[in-house]
Amino acid sequence: MTDTEQSREAVRRYFDTMAAHDWDAFGAVLADDVVYELPQTAERITGRDRLVRFNREYPGDWQLSVSRLIVDGQSAAGSMNFTVGEEEMVGLVYLELADGLIVRVTDFWPEAYEPPAGREHLTEQGVGGLDRLSRPGGS
Amino acid sequence: MTDTEQSREAVRRYFDTMAAHDWDAFGAVLADDVVYELPQTAERITGRDRLVRFNREYPGDWQLSVSRLIVDGQSAAGSMNFTVGEEEMVGLVYLELADGLIVRVTDFWPEAYEPPAGREHLTEQGVGGLDRLSRPGGS
Repeated sequence: MTDTEQSREAVRRYFDTMAAHDWDAFGAVLADDVVYELPQTAERITGRDRLVRFNREYPGDWQLSVSRLIVDGQSAAGSMNFTVGEEEMVGLVYLELADGLIVRVTDFWPEAYEPPAGREHLTEQGVGGLDRLSRPGGS
Repeated sequence: MTDTEQSREAVRRYFDTMAAHDWDAFGAVLADDVVYELPQTAERITGRDRLVRFNREYPGDWQLSVSRLIVDGQSAAGSMNFTVGEEEMVGLVYLELADGLIVRVTDFWPEAYEPPAGREHLTEQGVGGLDRLSRPGGS
């Protein structure tokens, strides 16, 4: 099995167990000393037990579906559509692996904003797509 | 040359020519009917000429450096640190390729925000890392 194949299997398990809220199985795909970073808030969580607990305790009745999965040796990137009640969010994830376990996760949660003025001659507006993100003020 | 190798070469050219503001070379790596999407603003730009023009006209004296590049067959993901004057931004990019040209680009520009309360027992705060993002209110 190549690095990419081994990583793909681990990353699929990462997302599948998260989607299933199966926290024991989720923990099994993480390295003991996994590092989880949220650059938007400058937060870091270190260690499997804390990261499992962070996910287990995460508030709200959320559901996710994976929209992209790109695996390259011991690195991977994914994206998720994430629903909490009426709100739709998009989660963007970069992962690093070693020995078939996840050693680093970096998560981003971009928010919708109004298109800047001055580029209407080039853009279509109000388009939907693969990434489902609630707009400010509804829908 | 495998799909992944061909894609890696094209994606490197995409970022290198953008970093160099070399818009003719940038255009040469795009398919005629390339689609560029910004899910956060629900905008779409269709076609090589418009996408080159969008980049050429983009305001500000910006510079970029690639922080991640993950290539998997005809799909890729990357991330960039992007500097405009004093402001540091992070750009997250997903790309799709066909015949060695880029046919779809999806860009995200996540913003910094304050850490939610209630998880201080699990997180370190104020950490830096690979992704350089100006904080609200400075630095």
